[in-house]
Amino acid sequence: MTNYNWQSGVSEAKFPKIGILGGGQLGQMLIQPAISWHLPLFVLDPSEDAPCKRWCENFRQGSLLDYNTILNFGKDLDLITIEIEHVNVEALYTLEQMGKSVYPQARVLEIIQDKRVQKQFYLDQGVPTADFRLTEARADILNHLDFLPAFHKLGKGGYDGKGVQRINSAEQVPLGFDEPSLLEKAVDFHKEITVMVARSSKGEIKCFQPTEIVYHEQNLVDYLLSPADIPQSVINSAEKLAITVIEALDLIGTLAVEMFLLHNGSLLVNEVAPRPHNSGHQSIEANFTSQFEQHWRAILGLPLGDTGQRGYAAMLNIIAPEGAKGSAAYENFDKVLAIPRVYPHLYGKSQLKPFRKMGHLTIVGESRKEVIEKLAEIKLLLKVKPDLIF
Amino acid sequence: MTNYNWQSGVSEAKFPKIGILGGGQLGQMLIQPAISWHLPLFVLDPSEDAPCKRWCENFRQGSLLDYNTILNFGKDLDLITIEIEHVNVEALYTLEQMGKSVYPQARVLEIIQDKRVQKQFYLDQGVPTADFRLTEARADILNHLDFLPAFHKLGKGGYDGKGVQRINSAEQVPLGFDEPSLLEKAVDFHKEITVMVARSSKGEIKCFQPTEIVYHEQNLVDYLLSPADIPQSVINSAEKLAITVIEALDLIGTLAVEMFLLHNGSLLVNEVAPRPHNSGHQSIEANFTSQFEQHWRAILGLPLGDTGQRGYAAMLNIIAPEGAKGSAAYENFDKVLAIPRVYPHLYGKSQLKPFRKMGHLTIVGESRKEVIEKLAEIKLLLKVKPDLIF
Repeated sequence: MTNYNWQSGVSEAKFPKIGILGGGQLGQMLIQPAISWHLPLFVLDPSEDAPCKRWCENFRQGSLLDYNTILNFGKDLDLITIEIEHVNVEALYTLEQMGKSVYPQARVLEIIQDKRVQKQFYLDQGVPTADFRLTEARADILNHLDFLPAFHKLGKGGYDGKGVQRINSAEQVPLGFDEPSLLEKAVDFHKEITVMVARSSKGEIKCFQPTEIVYHEQNLVDYLLSPADIPQSVINSAEKLAITVIEALDLIGTLAVEMFLLHNGSLLVNEVAPRPHNSGHQSIEANFTSQFEQHWRAILGLPLGDTGQRGYAAMLNIIAPEGAKGSAAYENFDKVLAIPRVYPHLYGKSQLKPFRKMGHLTIVGESRKEVIEKLAEIKLLLKVKPDLIF
Repeated sequence: MTNYNWQSGVSEAKFPKIGILGGGQLGQMLIQPAISWHLPLFVLDPSEDAPCKRWCENFRQGSLLDYNTILNFGKDLDLITIEIEHVNVEALYTLEQMGKSVYPQARVLEIIQDKRVQKQFYLDQGVPTADFRLTEARADILNHLDFLPAFHKLGKGGYDGKGVQRINSAEQVPLGFDEPSLLEKAVDFHKEITVMVARSSKGEIKCFQPTEIVYHEQNLVDYLLSPADIPQSVINSAEKLAITVIEALDLIGTLAVEMFLLHNGSLLVNEVAPRPHNSGHQSIEANFTSQFEQHWRAILGLPLGDTGQRGYAAMLNIIAPEGAKGSAAYENFDKVLAIPRVYPHLYGKSQLKPFRKMGHLTIVGESRKEVIEKLAEIKLLLKVKPDLIF
């Protein structure tokens, strides 16, 4: 395992060579703070149009699911990390055996890649989570009709709202998945919150304040408020729970812990992501350390940064409309930029797809009221539209 | 001239292709906010080890002083900007004639490249500046002994403290330059301050608050405090003066206006730089909009960002020691990162050179006292040393 002596001084010529599996928007936002330390980065992504390609001299095109591709990518590097968890874990185990640092660790990714294994892990570790039943095929849902309404979640391969289907009644069973999945009891929650937590290779742990999430109809995160409007006692419990989970996983890196806050004030872990996450994007402008810089600190064995927040923040996803295709244009981009303390991020995805996350924007302000008012103004202004007008 | 209709929406596929002349640290810091809008960047630099090379798919190696190199670089682009002013201006005139947007404009660079022309411009425009005499050869200084102590400044080619020599008395005349230069009366000033000001292609102008500079013995900026500790009346005069200069130059882009604040409270313009500048680096973490983002807004015809400051800041240059060579290592990099709200930036210069600027760091705090105390602590900790220890 890599253990750099930052105190004595690591020559820039010998900085660890770092590979990122995935070259999407999270990779793009990981590159921004990596530039500040001039870290030697390598990026692997299956798409020749990946957002990161433009920003990385050492961009490689290749499958993240292919054992040999990942092995070849990683074999000359020192440290491998991810910006998407759907990668070939066997290759990561091999790289670990070769002495590479792989953060998050292959073992953690294996748990998280399969929601069924992840849920079982919570049970085993005594982490509170919504009740669930495993299903091997669609018809199995019929054995658990007393469980409805529930969410049917695909064990493997779901992301960004895909692989999750609400089932309210027996008539909706055909909407379920005919592959190994789990049926999770729908929870009547007060709020959905997320805690971003990081744990360094030196064992240091720091949480960002919980954020509060408001969902779009298509189940993609629509906007987020930070910090969440919850009592201090709940903040404390949420951070404690996030620390329990990252310690239970023994994870090195960044972990998003999504939780349901119930009406009685108790918390259930919904799911986790072992990387910087949509729920932490506002930290770029609204915190003293961003989740992306924190990720580098954690996996490089450097001290974790101050997670304190600088005022209030809202984060709005910029989502392609239904039926969208072609290249994206953003109506009123100038008017949005004329609003003070608004920070758009465009991901440079080459093609629109219906409901695709094309970017996000962060709004920073002195009060929750101020950021919510600006958010409402921006939602009326900013429109994503296909490539027709120039 | 390019005039994008951001209101109707500019397709990402048709975003202006932007070329940056120079691929050093300023280029590296321009790339960071360009990533947020996924701007299509091209970078030209003479060095194959330029800091930007790692972060730009479209890095080109070539001379910035060669007419054909710049023309070839720019001919397929829409917008050309600079991160260093020592570039072939004739090529920029040609690119302008071809209909390209060149910001700052060729005409402005021509004025600024030659300190003699720059000083004459101030005189012509009624901009207050220290008294000076032109010298064609070293011996000419002898005609102005009544002018000493003075600074002898090379007309063309000086930067980062090079091309400036203090002459206190007749015996020191041999230290002067034997090329067209100017002799500037040494000013007994109270403080040296800088105002960063931006002017967009739409004519909008915004200033950052003045910063205060403390020099290192080798005449490189050592550290900077922001905002400057000066009365509001001086802040107002300084910002007014910066606006006068940027309007007189009719410049589109970012301008650093370095000024002497005299003991009587009046201001003299020392010199200007038509680009983001060392004196504005702290804006990355300490202001709502950084000077680098502001530069993109200005030259893309977008509304200028909020220049408000978020607390107090200090900026410390990380400078290679005398006699340094090889690759740089930074002693106690971890201890520096353990101090909250400290932001190191390493430029990735492949080789140490004596007194070379290798990076900088920004310190953000609640008070001037806090940032100065942290600065003192960091100066004791962080050492740049040659590549000997790993």
